[in-house]
Amino acid sequence: CSWSDGQVTTPEGYKDAYQLFAEGGWSGLGGNPVYGGMGMPKVLAAQFDEMVCSASLAFTLYPSLGAGASLAIDAHASDELKEAYLPQMYSGEWAGTMCLTEPHAGTDLGIIRTKAEDNGDGSHAITGTKIFITGGEHDLTDNIIHLVLAKLPDAPAGPKGISLFLVPKFLVNEDGSLGESNTLACGSIEHKMGINASATCVMNFDGAKGYLVGEPNKGLNAMFTMMNYERLFVGIQGLGSSEMSYQNALEYAQDRIQGRSANGAVQKDKAADPLMVHGDIRRMLLNMKALNEGGRAFSTYVAKQLDIAKFSQDEHEKEKASALVALLTPVVKAFLTDAGLESCIAGQQVFGGHGFIREWGQEQLVRDVRITQIYEGTNGIQALDLLGRKIALSGGAYLETFLGEVRSSVNSEDEFAEELLTAVDKLEELTRQLLAQSQNDPNVINSACVDYLNAFAYVAYGWVWSLMSKTASKKLAESSEDQPWLEAKQITARYYFKRILPRFESSAAAALSGTDELFTLSPDQF
Amino acid sequence: CSWSDGQVTTPEGYKDAYQLFAEGGWSGLGGNPVYGGMGMPKVLAAQFDEMVCSASLAFTLYPSLGAGASLAIDAHASDELKEAYLPQMYSGEWAGTMCLTEPHAGTDLGIIRTKAEDNGDGSHAITGTKIFITGGEHDLTDNIIHLVLAKLPDAPAGPKGISLFLVPKFLVNEDGSLGESNTLACGSIEHKMGINASATCVMNFDGAKGYLVGEPNKGLNAMFTMMNYERLFVGIQGLGSSEMSYQNALEYAQDRIQGRSANGAVQKDKAADPLMVHGDIRRMLLNMKALNEGGRAFSTYVAKQLDIAKFSQDEHEKEKASALVALLTPVVKAFLTDAGLESCIAGQQVFGGHGFIREWGQEQLVRDVRITQIYEGTNGIQALDLLGRKIALSGGAYLETFLGEVRSSVNSEDEFAEELLTAVDKLEELTRQLLAQSQNDPNVINSACVDYLNAFAYVAYGWVWSLMSKTASKKLAESSEDQPWLEAKQITARYYFKRILPRFESSAAAALSGTDELFTLSPDQF
Repeated sequence: CSWSDGQVTTPEGYKDAYQLFAEGGWSGLGGNPVYGGMGMPKVLAAQFDEMVCSASLAFTLYPSLGAGASLAIDAHASDELKEAYLPQMYSGEWAGTMCLTEPHAGTDLGIIRTKAEDNGDGSHAITGTKIFITGGEHDLTDNIIHLVLAKLPDAPAGPKGISLFLVPKFLVNEDGSLGESNTLACGSIEHKMGINASATCVMNFDGAKGYLVGEPNKGLNAMFTMMNYERLFVGIQGLGSSEMSYQNALEYAQDRIQGRSANGAVQKDKAADPLMVHGDIRRMLLNMKALNEGGRAFSTYVAKQLDIAKFSQDEHEKEKASALVALLTPVVKAFLTDAGLESCIAGQQVFGGHGFIREWGQEQLVRDVRITQIYEGTNGIQALDLLGRKIALSGGAYLETFLGEVRSSVNSEDEFAEELLTAVDKLEELTRQLLAQSQNDPNVINSACVDYLNAFAYVAYGWVWSLMSKTASKKLAESSEDQPWLEAKQITARYYFKRILPRFESSAAAALSGTDELFTLSPDQF
Repeated sequence: CSWSDGQVTTPEGYKDAYQLFAEGGWSGLGGNPVYGGMGMPKVLAAQFDEMVCSASLAFTLYPSLGAGASLAIDAHASDELKEAYLPQMYSGEWAGTMCLTEPHAGTDLGIIRTKAEDNGDGSHAITGTKIFITGGEHDLTDNIIHLVLAKLPDAPAGPKGISLFLVPKFLVNEDGSLGESNTLACGSIEHKMGINASATCVMNFDGAKGYLVGEPNKGLNAMFTMMNYERLFVGIQGLGSSEMSYQNALEYAQDRIQGRSANGAVQKDKAADPLMVHGDIRRMLLNMKALNEGGRAFSTYVAKQLDIAKFSQDEHEKEKASALVALLTPVVKAFLTDAGLESCIAGQQVFGGHGFIREWGQEQLVRDVRITQIYEGTNGIQALDLLGRKIALSGGAYLETFLGEVRSSVNSEDEFAEELLTAVDKLEELTRQLLAQSQNDPNVINSACVDYLNAFAYVAYGWVWSLMSKTASKKLAESSEDQPWLEAKQITARYYFKRILPRFESSAAAALSGTDELFTLSPDQF
């Protein structure tokens, strides 16, 4: 992207691609049908999200930010605002953004300074500077709808004094046509490590006209409505990049000849054998495959819980699904993006020196996927949310709901029953010990959380691999259709249990190591 | 760097920086004093290398490639060649390169196609294309001395038919002045993920005049003379980047205020506390610190063995040091660069969103350090060298030499005596089991080697941390000088043993998991 005098130009081809995307109806896939959305469940949207992220993470951010903003508007805005904005957002005619971060306030939104003053006409005047605004300005749509966090004059200090406003780039006339420019501008775009086709904007609001979404001072709550969707989506961004890396690396490993098999030459008529003959190449590919398919199953499970929480008529079922969403969303966001980096690095490594060169595309995947571990709450913040908020604050209740699901799915004759149940017991015991430690030392949660999240995720992936293997066995017993594919599931499940699940042990040991060394060093001893 | 019509222009300031570097005498730091080098030991050069790598990895490659080429010339070329080339290389007036890789031949050098034909006048005509040539062309020096691997017409197939040639960019007259251009040219430079100020060149040799270095068909041997130095240096590149990442992240964590301490506000008069109050931030910093200081100690130990192998008068001592160098060099190369990436990623994460933005510099460290895991033999190849060549082929003898050193350094009253000796026993047993498995299955070595190298390195770092802690305790008992620094060593050692050494377990489990799943999947089941 390039910036000039407040205008942002996206790369060649982006306008056409966006047009096609919008015309296909993809912008409104999960949107409310009342306002022209398709009302599709998240289990479907998640699969679509992964595909478009594999194709181009930077491109995908433009329509997805609009979808995210629509979600918040649909859940919290007045009917008037919904009618005025949602149809054009679902159709892709207008894009959307989320304006949260300020130069001094990223993770800590309680200290934002952007202010909102009542205009006395049902609108507010929004003034302040927001940074890191994805798609804050671009040339793909006629209008851009900003959702902005700001403080009312009488707002209490901290996170409980933040309100949410809808602030359009162009004001919308009563007949739905576009009116004058709002008083806001894109001051510059960032030069970044990756997703360079996605405009990351500094946005200056100078008394811009905005409309309150939801209750005053409840802006963070309104944001959190969509947070689970957004965080699931970011996890899927990691997965999409990772899947692309795997597919590229697999093709390269089959084509590129280099060295000989340890069992003697396979392609005797050629100067060398394909990379695929080497155990270490297969190890990298299988690591990626096991993490990708595990991540896909796990995130789809969470998407299903989101759907149940939204669509079910059964209160008990809704409540259980909501608890599972609350617990598992930070795991999806953090672990799928960490695994995404691991797989993009591995896929690049398969290419050797060529992986470092731009023309092969592998290095871009690494640069792009890296942001997914940082934005929408860093992975450290996800881990803190998991262990501190979702587990410690619920006294372990959410966790027990999840472990109950896992345990009740296991039959003693399952191939991995013993390993899985042992891992579940260990996770439960690890949690118990950490919660006990944290009674006397509040720093335990923050110090252990990242390693804990990893330990949690290795067990969760073990569970979905066990389920997939069981389903594959059942299907194989029923028919010979898809036999190679189903057998691959069984073998990859075994690979996961033998080769990846053992990482649980080192994560658990690190999580349990206490805070003595962490907090003994004075700043000048670092 | 930019390329135009065969000429490469380095970034602004590079000429001046290179001039200063050369004038300071740094180009000849480890060079042979007979030809104007300084003759300094590697233990000293290693510390200098790390500092310049921290400052700029891309810059450092220009002088360091010259130093590497000088090493091979000094060890294998005729006195005539040494006299004609080494003084100007040690002074930095001329630069050097290593021309190994070809488009179809990277790891597998046995299949190179570049040919060398006898001119009948003591020179050869070199013809072929080399890629990924660091500093193959640039504007920093008057001449560039290429060391090129090529095949003589009657050479046997494979790695035993490769010879080494010295091919200058400008021919050198008998009086030492520069003569006509040699028939070679830089066809293009690569666009890369990182080290963009280092010119990575496609070099076309078109009957270029070259001079044999060492014996015909012994080119790979001549290269391997310097390989241990080069691989140690690449490990140190990882360390240099990692140290920079740590220093930047530490400064940021102390300055940036965001969120509150889990124990309640520390800076009550400010809107938030410094990042340093958070356990997870301290965890990232201490991980980096423990890996950096461990890596520095471990690589300096290997540098010392290189010096002993080169300078000692005692044959037994030389032999032992050579065995340790052979064993430990691939570990330094692979593990310090893997840890380098881990630390650069962690340092970037400390910066949150700002870590993804170019102006802060953290993202460049990630992009730059990534190449160190790939070039000079990928880290997978290092691992294969360790387990296949250095351990299996020596029947475990080199390993026993190393473990003997470790065990003999431990006293029962050492703080970490028990943990360390247990880890050493486990590593020995892991090795024994893998060698036993590999008797029946040649794929075991290639499939287990990367996880094995990691397991090995975690034990080796445990050893150097134990030594550092012991030295710190001794010095603390003797005097109160440097007390905070020495105590930090003790605390960081504890941190290493509690929080990082447990990774040995998951690496060992993965290494021992066999090859069944890896080699059962057919290509279309991937």
